[in-house]
Amino acid sequence: MKLLRFGDVGQEKPGILDAQGNVRDLSGHIKDINAEFLSSEMFARVQDMDPASLPLVEGDPRIAEPVSGVGKFICVGLNYADHARESGMEVPPEPVLFMKATSAITGPFDQVQLPPGSQKSDWEVELGVVIGREAKYVSEADAMDYVAGFCVVNDLSEREYQLERQGQWVKGKGCDTFAPIGPYLVTPEDAGDVENAGIWLELNGERVQDGTTATMVYKVPFLVHYISQFMSLQPGDIISTGTPPGVGLGMTPPKFLKEGDVMRLGIDNLGVQQQSVIRYAK
Amino acid sequence: MKLLRFGDVGQEKPGILDAQGNVRDLSGHIKDINAEFLSSEMFARVQDMDPASLPLVEGDPRIAEPVSGVGKFICVGLNYADHARESGMEVPPEPVLFMKATSAITGPFDQVQLPPGSQKSDWEVELGVVIGREAKYVSEADAMDYVAGFCVVNDLSEREYQLERQGQWVKGKGCDTFAPIGPYLVTPEDAGDVENAGIWLELNGERVQDGTTATMVYKVPFLVHYISQFMSLQPGDIISTGTPPGVGLGMTPPKFLKEGDVMRLGIDNLGVQQQSVIRYAK
Repeated sequence: MKLLRFGDVGQEKPGILDAQGNVRDLSGHIKDINAEFLSSEMFARVQDMDPASLPLVEGDPRIAEPVSGVGKFICVGLNYADHARESGMEVPPEPVLFMKATSAITGPFDQVQLPPGSQKSDWEVELGVVIGREAKYVSEADAMDYVAGFCVVNDLSEREYQLERQGQWVKGKGCDTFAPIGPYLVTPEDAGDVENAGIWLELNGERVQDGTTATMVYKVPFLVHYISQFMSLQPGDIISTGTPPGVGLGMTPPKFLKEGDVMRLGIDNLGVQQQSVIRYAK
Repeated sequence: MKLLRFGDVGQEKPGILDAQGNVRDLSGHIKDINAEFLSSEMFARVQDMDPASLPLVEGDPRIAEPVSGVGKFICVGLNYADHARESGMEVPPEPVLFMKATSAITGPFDQVQLPPGSQKSDWEVELGVVIGREAKYVSEADAMDYVAGFCVVNDLSEREYQLERQGQWVKGKGCDTFAPIGPYLVTPEDAGDVENAGIWLELNGERVQDGTTATMVYKVPFLVHYISQFMSLQPGDIISTGTPPGVGLGMTPPKFLKEGDVMRLGIDNLGVQQQSVIRYAK
C-alpha cells in the first residue's frame, strides 16, 4: 500500500495510490495520515480496502509529505560503508544520531529554499523509516513490528551552519524546507527488499548519488532497536538512515546547491521526488 | 498570568492560577494550551479574564507540563559565564544549539526515570522560553514579540550517552522523562526580570545550583533572533537557555543521580518543580 497526502499546504487530505497509479481519496474514512491513524486499527483496515472503491482524485493536486504531525525526525550519520570509505573516515563503532527540526519537513515536489546569504547547501538521498507504534527498549528481532512503512527523504544540509558555526549539527539540518519526504508512505509488504534497493539522486539531470541500501552499515531493525534504547519512538516519528556516496561536500572541489538547480531522487519501490531550488527572500 | 495544565497523563485540562494560588479551570473556554491556542486571539482574551470567575478546581490534581504538542525543544549549551569559567572552558563565540526529543517532556512533579543500566544522569535547571507565534529571521529588537512566556526546565542529561557514545548530544538528552517543564507558563508581564532572576536546584535538600540569569551570556531576545536564522520557530516551541554552575558532571568527583534522589528546582517568579528519581524497569 502506498499512502499519500494531497492538497495545498494546510489543507491536505489523505489518499492512497491505486494499481493504475491514480490517487484515491481516503478522507471519507480517515482524517489524516498521522500518529493517531498509524497507531489505530484503521491502519490495518485501510490496508484491506480496495483502492478502486474510493473516489478518484481529479486534476493534478500538490502531493504533500505523506505523514503529518511528525514528532521526532532522527537521522543516522555516516551509515554507508562506501560513503565512509570515499570520505576517508572510519565507520563509527555505533550509530551517530542527530535530529532534524520537524519544521523543516516539506512535500516531495515543493521548492527547496536556500537561507538568505547561505553558500553551502547540500543534498542527501536517504531511506526513511516511519514508526507505527511506540517503541521503547525493543529488541532487534521485534523491531519491524514497530515500523509502519518507508519513504524517500532528502536530508538537506547547510554545511557551513552544520560544521563551521559552533558544535552540534542541528543548525545546518533544520532550515525550513530542508526535509522533503515522500511522495508515499509505503507499507513493508509493498516496499520490496529495502536492504537491497537502488538509491539515487540526480542534480540537473546528472546522477551524483547512485548507491544501494545494501552498503548500509547499520540496518533498519538494528537502528529501531538501537534508538529505542535512548528514547522512545512514537507513532509518526521518522528515522532517516544515512546517505550513500555522492554528496556535494565530498566532491573535489565541493559543489553546493544554487538557485535554479533541480534535484530528482528516488529509491526502488518507494517513488521519486523532485525539487527546484530557490533563494528565500525575507 | 500563570497558565498550567492539570489532570492525569493524556487527560489534562487547561487551567490558570488565581491570585490566591488556586487552580481555576479554563476548559470551558479553550481546549488545551498548545500551538493553536498560543497563536490565536484567545491567548489575549484569556489574559483579560478574571481568574476568580472561572470554576475552582477541587482536590489535588497532578500538574502537567504547561504546553502540549511542543514541536521543537531547542537547547543552548554553555550559556552561563560562571559555568564556563568553573568548567575551564571558553564562552563560545556564538551559541551552541542542540535538540531534546519532545517525547522526553514530562510534568514538573512526575518521576524522573533513569534508563536501565545507565550510570551518569545529571540535572540542569534552565530558563525556558515558549514561542507564541512563528519567528523566522526576526531581529533582536522584535524578538520578544514572538515570546508567549517563560517556564522552568530541568534539562536532564545522561552524560555517558551524551559524551561517550559517538558524536552529537541527542542520545543523552532525549531519554523519556528527561524534560520536566513547568509548573507554569508565565506570561512576560508576570515573569519579572527574567534577565536578573535567581535560578537554583537542590538535590536531596542541598543547594547544588544557585545562580542568577544575570550571568547568561546570550540573552533571550538574542537567542530568539539567532535561532530564527537557522530554522523557523513555531508556536509552542521551547528554547531552553542553558544552565548555571553546579551540575553533577562538574563536581570533583562527578556526582550523578541515583534511585531515591529528589530534585527541587526553581526560578524567581516562575515557580518550583520537584521530581523523585526511580529506575525504569523494562
